[in-house]
Amino acid sequence: MMFNSPFKNRYMDLALHKAREAYEKGEVPVGAVIVNNDGEIIESAANATISNHDPTAHAEIIVIRKALKKLKVNRLDFCDLYVTLQPCPMCSHAIGLVRIRRLYFGAYEKSYDLNDCSFYKKNFYEPEIISGINEENCSKLLKDFFRELR
Amino acid sequence: MMFNSPFKNRYMDLALHKAREAYEKGEVPVGAVIVNNDGEIIESAANATISNHDPTAHAEIIVIRKALKKLKVNRLDFCDLYVTLQPCPMCSHAIGLVRIRRLYFGAYEKSYDLNDCSFYKKNFYEPEIISGINEENCSKLLKDFFRELR
Repeated sequence: MMFNSPFKNRYMDLALHKAREAYEKGEVPVGAVIVNNDGEIIESAANATISNHDPTAHAEIIVIRKALKKLKVNRLDFCDLYVTLQPCPMCSHAIGLVRIRRLYFGAYEKSYDLNDCSFYKKNFYEPEIISGINEENCSKLLKDFFRELR
Repeated sequence: MMFNSPFKNRYMDLALHKAREAYEKGEVPVGAVIVNNDGEIIESAANATISNHDPTAHAEIIVIRKALKKLKVNRLDFCDLYVTLQPCPMCSHAIGLVRIRRLYFGAYEKSYDLNDCSFYKKNFYEPEIISGINEENCSKLLKDFFRELR
Protein backbone atom coordinates (compact mmCIF):
# COMPACT_ATOMS: atom_id res chain seq x y z
CA MET A 1 0.00 0.00 0.00
CA MET A 2 1.09 3.52 -0.76
CA PHE A 3 1.13 5.86 2.23
CA ASN A 4 1.32 9.60 1.80
CA SER A 5 1.61 9.40 -1.97
CA PRO A 6 4.74 10.93 -3.52
CA PHE A 7 2.38 12.17 -6.23
CA LYS A 8 0.20 14.03 -3.78
CA ASN A 9 1.25 17.42 -5.15
CA ARG A 10 0.33 16.38 -8.67
CA TYR A 11 -3.18 15.37 -7.61
CA MET A 12 -3.58 18.47 -5.48
CA ASP A 13 -2.53 20.55 -8.51
CA LEU A 14 -5.46 19.09 -10.42
CA ALA A 15 -7.79 19.83 -7.49
CA LEU A 16 -6.43 23.38 -7.51
CA HIS A 17 -7.06 23.61 -11.25
CA LYS A 18 -10.71 22.67 -10.61
CA ALA A 19 -10.84 25.25 -7.80
CA ARG A 20 -9.63 27.91 -10.25
CA GLU A 21 -12.39 26.93 -12.67
CA ALA A 22 -14.89 27.47 -9.84
CA TYR A 23 -13.27 30.85 -9.07
CA GLU A 24 -13.79 31.98 -12.66
CA LYS A 25 -17.48 31.14 -12.38
CA GLY A 26 -17.87 33.14 -9.19
CA GLU A 27 -18.09 30.02 -7.04
CA VAL A 28 -16.16 29.63 -3.78
CA PRO A 29 -12.93 28.13 -5.20
CA VAL A 30 -12.70 24.57 -3.93
CA GLY A 31 -11.73 21.60 -6.06
CA ALA A 32 -11.53 17.86 -5.42
CA VAL A 33 -10.05 14.79 -7.08
CA ILE A 34 -10.52 11.07 -6.45
CA VAL A 35 -7.60 8.75 -7.20
CA ASN A 36 -7.65 4.95 -6.96
CA ASN A 37 -4.96 2.76 -5.40
CA ASP A 38 -3.16 2.47 -8.73
CA GLY A 39 -2.80 6.24 -8.78
CA GLU A 40 -5.35 6.63 -11.56
CA ILE A 41 -7.50 9.74 -11.50
CA ILE A 42 -11.13 8.59 -11.34
CA GLU A 43 -12.97 11.89 -11.22
CA SER A 44 -12.51 15.56 -10.42
CA ALA A 45 -15.02 18.26 -9.50
CA ALA A 46 -15.36 21.86 -8.42
CA ASN A 47 -17.65 23.47 -5.91
CA ALA A 48 -20.91 24.33 -7.70
CA THR A 49 -23.27 25.60 -5.04
CA ILE A 50 -24.32 28.63 -7.09
CA SER A 51 -24.53 27.10 -10.57
CA ASN A 52 -26.29 23.98 -9.25
CA HIS A 53 -28.61 26.08 -7.09
CA ASP A 54 -27.74 23.75 -4.25
CA PRO A 55 -25.84 24.70 -1.07
CA THR A 56 -24.91 21.05 -0.62
CA ALA A 57 -23.10 20.86 -3.99
CA HIS A 58 -19.63 20.97 -2.47
CA ALA A 59 -16.72 19.68 -4.56
CA GLU A 60 -16.29 16.61 -2.32
CA ILE A 61 -19.95 15.56 -2.56
CA ILE A 62 -19.96 16.01 -6.34
CA VAL A 63 -16.71 14.13 -6.92
CA ILE A 64 -17.81 11.27 -4.63
CA ARG A 65 -21.10 10.90 -6.53
CA LYS A 66 -19.34 11.00 -9.88
CA ALA A 67 -16.82 8.38 -8.82
CA LEU A 68 -19.46 6.03 -7.38
CA LYS A 69 -21.47 6.30 -10.58
CA LYS A 70 -18.48 5.84 -12.87
CA LEU A 71 -17.11 2.82 -11.02
CA LYS A 72 -20.57 1.39 -10.22
CA VAL A 73 -19.60 0.80 -6.59
CA ASN A 74 -21.00 1.74 -3.19
CA ARG A 75 -17.69 2.20 -1.44
CA LEU A 76 -14.47 3.97 -2.26
CA ASP A 77 -12.24 2.17 0.23
CA PHE A 78 -9.61 1.75 -2.49
CA CYS A 79 -9.57 5.47 -3.27
CA ASP A 80 -8.01 8.65 -1.92
CA LEU A 81 -9.67 12.05 -1.98
CA TYR A 82 -7.73 15.26 -2.63
CA VAL A 83 -9.47 18.51 -1.80
CA THR A 84 -8.12 22.05 -1.67
CA LEU A 85 -9.93 22.93 1.58
CA GLN A 86 -10.52 21.01 4.80
CA PRO A 87 -13.96 19.40 4.38
CA CYS A 88 -16.99 20.68 6.26
CA PRO A 89 -18.88 18.29 8.59
CA MET A 90 -21.33 17.36 5.82
CA CYS A 91 -18.54 16.34 3.47
CA SER A 92 -16.49 14.73 6.24
CA HIS A 93 -19.36 12.45 7.09
CA ALA A 94 -19.99 11.66 3.41
CA ILE A 95 -16.27 10.77 3.12
CA GLY A 96 -16.77 8.36 6.01
CA LEU A 97 -19.95 6.89 4.54
CA VAL A 98 -18.19 5.88 1.33
CA ARG A 99 -15.06 4.76 3.24
CA ILE A 100 -12.52 6.96 1.46
CA ARG A 101 -9.14 5.43 2.34
CA ARG A 102 -7.11 8.57 2.70
CA LEU A 103 -8.04 12.25 2.74
CA TYR A 104 -5.50 14.81 1.54
CA PHE A 105 -6.47 18.42 1.97
CA GLY A 106 -4.80 21.77 1.30
CA ALA A 107 -5.99 24.82 3.23
CA TYR A 108 -7.23 24.59 6.80
CA GLU A 109 -10.71 25.72 7.76
CA LYS A 110 -10.20 27.15 11.22
CA SER A 111 -13.81 26.72 12.31
CA TYR A 112 -13.46 22.93 12.06
CA ASP A 113 -11.02 21.67 14.64
CA LEU A 114 -9.37 18.50 13.36
CA ASN A 115 -8.85 17.37 16.95
CA ASP A 116 -12.51 17.75 17.66
CA CYS A 117 -14.00 15.93 14.71
CA SER A 118 -16.79 14.35 16.70
CA PHE A 119 -18.39 13.24 13.43
CA TYR A 120 -15.33 11.08 12.87
CA LYS A 121 -14.69 10.06 16.46
CA LYS A 122 -18.21 8.83 16.99
CA ASN A 123 -18.38 7.34 13.62
CA PHE A 124 -17.67 3.81 12.53
CA TYR A 125 -14.98 4.93 10.16
CA GLU A 126 -12.23 7.49 9.95
CA PRO A 127 -9.96 7.94 6.94
CA GLU A 128 -6.27 8.61 7.30
CA ILE A 129 -5.85 12.39 7.00
CA ILE A 130 -2.86 14.16 5.46
CA SER A 131 -3.28 17.91 5.68
CA GLY A 132 -1.62 21.08 4.42
CA ILE A 133 -0.77 19.79 0.90
CA ASN A 134 0.08 22.85 -1.21
CA GLU A 135 -1.61 24.80 1.56
CA GLU A 136 -0.22 28.17 0.45
CA ASN A 137 -1.77 28.11 -3.03
CA CYS A 138 -5.02 26.50 -1.90
CA SER A 139 -5.41 29.11 0.80
CA LYS A 140 -4.35 32.05 -1.40
CA LEU A 141 -7.03 31.27 -3.99
CA LEU A 142 -9.73 31.34 -1.29
CA LYS A 143 -8.38 34.55 0.23
CA ASP A 144 -8.26 36.24 -3.19
CA PHE A 145 -11.84 35.17 -3.82
CA PHE A 146 -13.21 36.51 -0.54
CA ARG A 147 -11.17 39.73 -0.86
CA GLU A 148 -12.78 40.40 -4.24
CA LEU A 149 -16.23 39.77 -2.79
CA ARG A 150 -15.84 42.61 -0.29
CA MET B 1 -45.09 32.36 13.24
CA MET B 2 -46.14 28.84 14.04
CA PHE B 3 -44.07 27.08 16.68
CA ASN B 4 -44.22 23.35 17.17
CA SER B 5 -46.88 22.86 14.50
CA PRO B 6 -50.15 21.30 15.64
CA PHE B 7 -50.02 19.43 12.33
CA LYS B 8 -46.64 17.91 13.10
CA ASN B 9 -48.08 14.40 13.37
CA ARG B 10 -49.73 14.72 9.99
CA TYR B 11 -46.44 15.67 8.33
CA MET B 12 -44.56 12.98 10.22
CA ASP B 13 -47.15 10.46 9.02
CA LEU B 14 -46.25 11.35 5.45
CA ALA B 15 -42.53 11.01 6.27
CA LEU B 16 -43.34 7.62 7.78
CA HIS B 17 -45.24 6.66 4.63
CA LYS B 18 -42.12 7.45 2.59
CA ALA B 19 -40.04 5.44 5.06
CA ARG B 20 -42.34 2.45 4.51
CA GLU B 21 -41.86 2.80 0.74
CA ALA B 22 -38.11 2.61 1.36
CA TYR B 23 -38.61 -0.45 3.56
CA GLU B 24 -40.45 -2.25 0.78
CA LYS B 25 -37.50 -1.61 -1.55
CA GLY B 26 -35.02 -3.02 0.95
CA GLU B 27 -33.69 0.42 1.82
CA VAL B 28 -33.10 1.54 5.43
CA PRO B 29 -36.58 2.95 6.16
CA VAL B 30 -36.17 6.69 6.61
CA GLY B 31 -38.49 9.28 5.11
CA ALA B 32 -38.48 13.06 5.03
CA VAL B 33 -40.90 15.88 4.20
CA ILE B 34 -40.39 19.61 3.68
CA VAL B 35 -43.25 21.94 4.58
CA ASN B 36 -43.32 25.71 4.03
CA ASN B 37 -44.50 28.32 6.52
CA ASP B 38 -48.05 28.11 5.15
CA GLY B 39 -48.09 24.42 6.04
CA GLU B 40 -47.91 23.38 2.39
CA ILE B 41 -46.03 20.18 1.63
CA ILE B 42 -43.24 21.10 -0.78
CA GLU B 43 -41.53 17.76 -1.30
CA SER B 44 -41.11 14.34 0.27
CA ALA B 45 -38.42 11.71 -0.17
CA ALA B 46 -37.22 8.36 1.07
CA ASN B 47 -33.74 7.08 1.76
CA ALA B 48 -32.36 5.71 -1.52
CA THR B 49 -28.75 4.78 -0.82
CA ILE B 50 -29.06 1.37 -2.48
CA SER B 51 -31.23 2.21 -5.47
CA ASN B 52 -29.27 5.40 -6.19
CA HIS B 53 -25.96 3.57 -5.72
CA ASP B 54 -24.97 6.44 -3.46
CA PRO B 55 -24.31 6.21 0.31
CA THR B 56 -24.98 9.95 0.58
CA ALA B 57 -28.54 9.63 -0.80
CA HIS B 58 -30.20 10.02 2.60
CA ALA B 59 -33.85 11.10 2.66
CA GLU B 60 -32.94 14.55 4.05
CA ILE B 61 -30.38 15.29 1.33
CA ILE B 62 -32.77 14.16 -1.42
CA VAL B 63 -35.76 16.12 -0.10
CA ILE B 64 -33.64 19.27 0.38
CA ARG B 65 -32.36 19.07 -3.21
CA LYS B 66 -35.86 18.47 -4.56
CA ALA B 67 -37.29 21.41 -2.61
CA LEU B 68 -34.50 23.80 -3.68
CA LYS B 69 -35.02 22.81 -7.30
CA LYS B 70 -38.80 23.03 -7.17
CA LEU B 71 -38.87 26.42 -5.45
CA LYS B 72 -35.82 27.75 -7.35
CA VAL B 73 -34.26 29.06 -4.14
CA ASN B 74 -30.93 28.66 -2.35
CA ARG B 75 -32.30 28.75 1.17
CA LEU B 76 -35.16 27.08 2.96
CA ASP B 77 -35.39 29.44 5.92
CA PHE B 78 -39.17 29.53 5.51
CA CYS B 79 -39.44 25.75 5.64
CA ASP B 80 -39.55 22.98 8.21
CA LEU B 81 -38.09 19.52 7.74
CA TYR B 82 -39.76 16.39 9.09
CA VAL B 83 -37.68 13.23 9.17
CA THR B 84 -38.41 9.87 10.77
CA LEU B 85 -34.87 9.48 12.20
CA GLN B 86 -32.48 11.91 13.87
CA PRO B 87 -30.24 13.19 11.05
CA CYS B 88 -26.62 12.08 10.72
CA PRO B 89 -23.85 14.72 10.80
CA MET B 90 -23.83 14.96 7.00
CA CYS B 91 -27.53 15.73 6.86
CA SER B 92 -27.42 17.96 9.95
CA HIS B 93 -24.84 20.15 8.30
CA ALA B 94 -26.79 20.21 5.03
CA ILE B 95 -29.86 21.26 7.04
CA GLY B 96 -27.78 24.13 8.43
CA LEU B 97 -26.41 25.08 5.01
CA VAL B 98 -29.88 25.61 3.58
CA ARG B 99 -31.12 27.25 6.80
CA ILE B 100 -34.06 24.95 7.52
CA ARG B 101 -36.17 26.83 10.06
CA ARG B 102 -37.28 23.95 12.20
CA LEU B 103 -36.29 20.31 12.33
CA TYR B 104 -38.82 17.74 13.53
CA PHE B 105 -37.56 14.21 13.89
CA GLY B 106 -39.03 10.91 15.08
CA ALA B 107 -36.67 8.20 16.29
CA TYR B 108 -33.45 8.98 18.13
CA GLU B 109 -30.10 7.82 16.81
CA LYS B 110 -28.14 7.10 19.97
CA SER B 111 -24.73 7.48 18.36
CA TYR B 112 -25.43 11.18 17.71
CA ASP B 113 -25.70 13.04 20.97
CA LEU B 114 -28.01 16.03 20.50
CA ASN B 115 -26.17 17.85 23.28
CA ASP B 116 -22.87 17.36 21.53
CA CYS B 117 -23.75 18.50 18.06
CA SER B 118 -20.45 20.22 17.44
CA PHE B 119 -21.45 20.62 13.79
CA TYR B 120 -24.26 22.83 14.96
CA LYS B 121 -22.49 24.52 17.85
CA LYS B 122 -19.55 25.58 15.74
CA ASN B 123 -21.69 26.42 12.86
CA PHE B 124 -23.21 29.73 11.88
CA TYR B 125 -26.71 28.38 12.05
CA GLU B 126 -28.78 26.00 14.14
CA PRO B 127 -32.40 25.15 13.43
CA GLU B 128 -34.95 24.81 16.17
CA ILE B 129 -35.20 21.08 16.93
CA ILE B 130 -38.35 19.25 18.03
CA SER B 131 -37.63 15.58 18.61
CA GLY B 132 -39.49 12.37 19.31
CA ILE B 133 -42.50 13.04 17.02
CA ASN B 134 -44.29 9.72 16.55
CA GLU B 135 -41.09 8.18 17.87
CA GLU B 136 -42.63 4.79 18.57
CA ASN B 137 -43.70 4.09 14.98
CA CYS B 138 -40.59 5.67 13.42
CA SER B 139 -38.38 3.58 15.65
CA LYS B 140 -40.40 0.37 15.24
CA LEU B 141 -40.07 0.49 11.45
CA LEU B 142 -36.28 0.72 11.72
CA LYS B 143 -36.10 -2.06 14.31
CA ASP B 144 -38.26 -4.33 12.14
CA PHE B 145 -36.02 -3.63 9.17
CA PHE B 146 -32.80 -4.44 10.97
CA ARG B 147 -34.32 -7.51 12.63
CA GLU B 148 -35.22 -8.91 9.20
CA LEU B 149 -31.71 -8.25 7.95
CA ARG B 150 -30.21 -10.55 10.57
